Amino acid sequence: MAAMKTVDRFFEDYAVGESRTTQGRTVTEADVVLHAGQTGDFFPHHLDAAWCATQPFGRRMAHGTLIISMAVGMTAGDINPQAMSYGYDKIRFVKPVFIGDTITVTAEVTDKADHRKDPARLGYLHELVSVINQDGETVTVLTHLYLVNKRGEPS
Amino acid sequence: MAAMKTVDRFFEDYAVGESRTTQGRTVTEADVVLHAGQTGDFFPHHLDAAWCATQPFGRRMAHGTLIISMAVGMTAGDINPQAMSYGYDKIRFVKPVFIGDTITVTAEVTDKADHRKDPARLGYLHELVSVINQDGETVTVLTHLYLVNKRGEPS
Amino acid sequence: MAAMKTVDRFFEDYAVGESRTTQGRTVTEADVVLHAGQTGDFFPHHLDAAWCATQPFGRRMAHGTLIISMAVGMTAGDINPQAMSYGYDKIRFVKPVFIGDTITVTAEVTDKADHRKDPARLGYLHELVSVINQDGETVTVLTHLYLVNKRGEPS
Amino acid sequence: MAAMKTVDRFFEDYAVGESRTTQGRTVTEADVVLHAGQTGDFFPHHLDAAWCATQPFGRRMAHGTLIISMAVGMTAGDINPQAMSYGYDKIRFVKPVFIGDTITVTAEVTDKADHRKDPARLGYLHELVSVINQDGETVTVLTHLYLVNKRGEPS
Amino acid sequence: MAAMKTVDRFFEDYAVGESRTTQGRTVTEADVVLHAGQTGDFFPHHLDAAWCATQPFGRRMAHGTLIISMAVGMTAGDINPQAMSYGYDKIRFVKPVFIGDTITVTAEVTDKADHRKDPARLGYLHELVSVINQDGETVTVLTHLYLVNKRGEPS
Amino acid sequence: MAAMKTVDRFFEDYAVGESRTTQGRTVTEADVVLHAGQTGDFFPHHLDAAWCATQPFGRRMAHGTLIISMAVGMTAGDINPQAMSYGYDKIRFVKPVFIGDTITVTAEVTDKADHRKDPARLGYLHELVSVINQDGETVTVLTHLYLVNKRGEPS
Repeated sequence: MAAMKTVDRFFEDYAVGESRTTQGRTVTEADVVLHAGQTGDFFPHHLDAAWCATQPFGRRMAHGTLIISMAVGMTAGDINPQAMSYGYDKIRFVKPVFIGDTITVTAEVTDKADHRKDPARLGYLHELVSVINQDGETVTVLTHLYLVNKRGEPS
Repeated sequence: MAAMKTVDRFFEDYAVGESRTTQGRTVTEADVVLHAGQTGDFFPHHLDAAWCATQPFGRRMAHGTLIISMAVGMTAGDINPQAMSYGYDKIRFVKPVFIGDTITVTAEVTDKADHRKDPARLGYLHELVSVINQDGETVTVLTHLYLVNKRGEPS
Repeated sequence: MAAMKTVDRFFEDYAVGESRTTQGRTVTEADVVLHAGQTGDFFPHHLDAAWCATQPFGRRMAHGTLIISMAVGMTAGDINPQAMSYGYDKIRFVKPVFIGDTITVTAEVTDKADHRKDPARLGYLHELVSVINQDGETVTVLTHLYLVNKRGEPS
Repeated sequence: MAAMKTVDRFFEDYAVGESRTTQGRTVTEADVVLHAGQTGDFFPHHLDAAWCATQPFGRRMAHGTLIISMAVGMTAGDINPQAMSYGYDKIRFVKPVFIGDTITVTAEVTDKADHRKDPARLGYLHELVSVINQDGETVTVLTHLYLVNKRGEPS
Repeated sequence: MAAMKTVDRFFEDYAVGESRTTQGRTVTEADVVLHAGQTGDFFPHHLDAAWCATQPFGRRMAHGTLIISMAVGMTAGDINPQAMSYGYDKIRFVKPVFIGDTITVTAEVTDKADHRKDPARLGYLHELVSVINQDGETVTVLTHLYLVNKRGEPS
Repeated sequence: MAAMKTVDRFFEDYAVGESRTTQGRTVTEADVVLHAGQTGDFFPHHLDAAWCATQPFGRRMAHGTLIISMAVGMTAGDINPQAMSYGYDKIRFVKPVFIGDTITVTAEVTDKADHRKDPARLGYLHELVSVINQDGETVTVLTHLYLVNKRGEPS
């Protein structure tokens, strides 16, 4: 009984080390089929259960871009008009995610820096996004990059 | 930069008259096509643009169940383990919603009452959910019914 | 080897007590994933198999609005230009519907009444829609409300 | 206010020349995107609006298999346990179907014949399925082949 | 690390008897649910697991049009501007495809013929498309018909 | 008339500077709606046409993760068992992609390096993936990282 909100949060309002963790979400066969359909990637690693059963990994894996998309979506919540997502760094697929796995996502502020050209008004914020499976293993990581307005006034 | 949270909110924490309003969402042709696919309702009112153009309403309308589903989804947010949704009353389709319309949803606590059998521990909460289009017209209303745990302690 | 038809049926043509029952339909994981995607409701009760396994209900449940949407869609068939659906009353989620359950739907005419302002030309028709699972349990009910033209001629 | 029904119809109950026509359905961009996703066919004829605008046909076309699938689905209705669809003949893409076109489908019984091996109990039934666009042009045709039980009793 | 390419291939470049085989693809419950949604065919043979369990075939079957759509999509690859698909012949559903089956597709050039009216510039090409399940059984066949430009020059 | 193939390509077979360009694909409203549904990100920047019309950018934008997913999918083609994708670097959203834009993708080998621990058998390969809109503007870039087996034999 609440809803997506718009909340102003400025550069000064973030602290390195703060973190948050999402609810879990099971990566279903339907998610993988829909993602194949959205991307056109029908590789047998994702869609051919018979062939996967003959491979060392044994089961169908989710697309890397599906896990990234889910993880970024799961960490989105309140709308912050003061922050703009401008990219990601160091996306790494540490372990495969299989159909039926359940993932949760942790996002931690790992870095804050002044903007190179406009340090009075803007700052860079880095969030380390870690995707964890039901066994507690980190399966995917990425650094989410934001450009955030400074309040600039004593608050 | 926030995410779906679990927040305990007890019966005593709600006040009649409090309300919240969601972000807007455009009801797209894709939403209507997907809803036809989910429900099996392929009535020409929703899916036949040529026929609709010959009718007084002139354009394809969204399914009533699509608007209900969207509205309930848009007002969901934080997870409250103390509240359970058990039904809806007085769903009324006041005006049609056409493909391309943008809706926002307001939810207002309109009623609180003790549970008939267990008034010490449970209460009924009614939320009036109103769907408003881009012209400010109310298009759909419903009353969302919750059973909510009482804190039972002086807070 | 037949198709959606348009059939005129007037207020006088309905009798209280008449009923019809649909084919069955299995509520699949894909349906729940698509409904989450259509509504934005990604609550763990529907999408987190690992967490559900730790709860008393044990398994992922379908969204209430999915069951309503399916049930209304399953009872739609012939197009009746003389009847207009204007809302629902007393939607109640009697028991949860789990992924893998198969539902059938019964719709029974439970009430007929003259229109308050134009009794010569219009009438209200109420259909009790009951969703039954594979174990014969009623899981969801609602009353579907129609405004129906009267034939107005001796038939 | 009716639903998918099961109706027994035997070979003797069909007459060459009988036909039925469906409601219309608009072939939307969403349908084409979903069909690309279901088939893996992302050819620019279907998905690249900019390139299509430079071609003689000027607009994005629906996949042939989408039109076949829609047409067969639109002519399905009552379930007839006495008939089994076993294939199609002479599928021809007579004219392209563009995104935004509205199609209706006519199905006409064009041929009846005894089964080669079991003429006392089975017969072949051919239905000519014609897809017509909003300008009255036939865009796709196919012959739907059924094997139908004979009643075997004087009817 | 390659992508959909445009490759000119003329009538003279095809040889009767040449064939190619696709990767495998598992026909999932999600595919069947999406195809029901795309076509409006919600027959219990495809969507009612409880009823199917009482039938001789025991499990939910894929729609015939889903297998055709998948098979044609799986055999699409390079874009050949010199060839135009104009239809299919002799589509036959030899055996059912069940949810969970994995199919591969073989396409073999079975016939080449000069165009009736313009033999100097055009030719007909027939490809026999065979869908094979994980047990090596042929489940669906069709003949894919192409009209192909002749190079017309000694190559 | 070709299909997804498996082609062995070793580290030695790639040359810095080689590149390939995909067909185009229009980013449709349906793609954005489906991506919102897959990720749970229903931000008004993507889904609220009325609000977007009041903003400087004026129109609904695609999700960044949708463009990444599409771009990676569009550059996938032949299966190379000798190469494994292990991540991405420097994903940057240079310009927004709006609903209706058509993108093409270029992938260029920009770097090759020996594996740190096993230089005799493995190498790193970097591909710069650039997403270009219909006006020739670069809208998104990323570096796709592969670990590739060396042939190890004089070729």
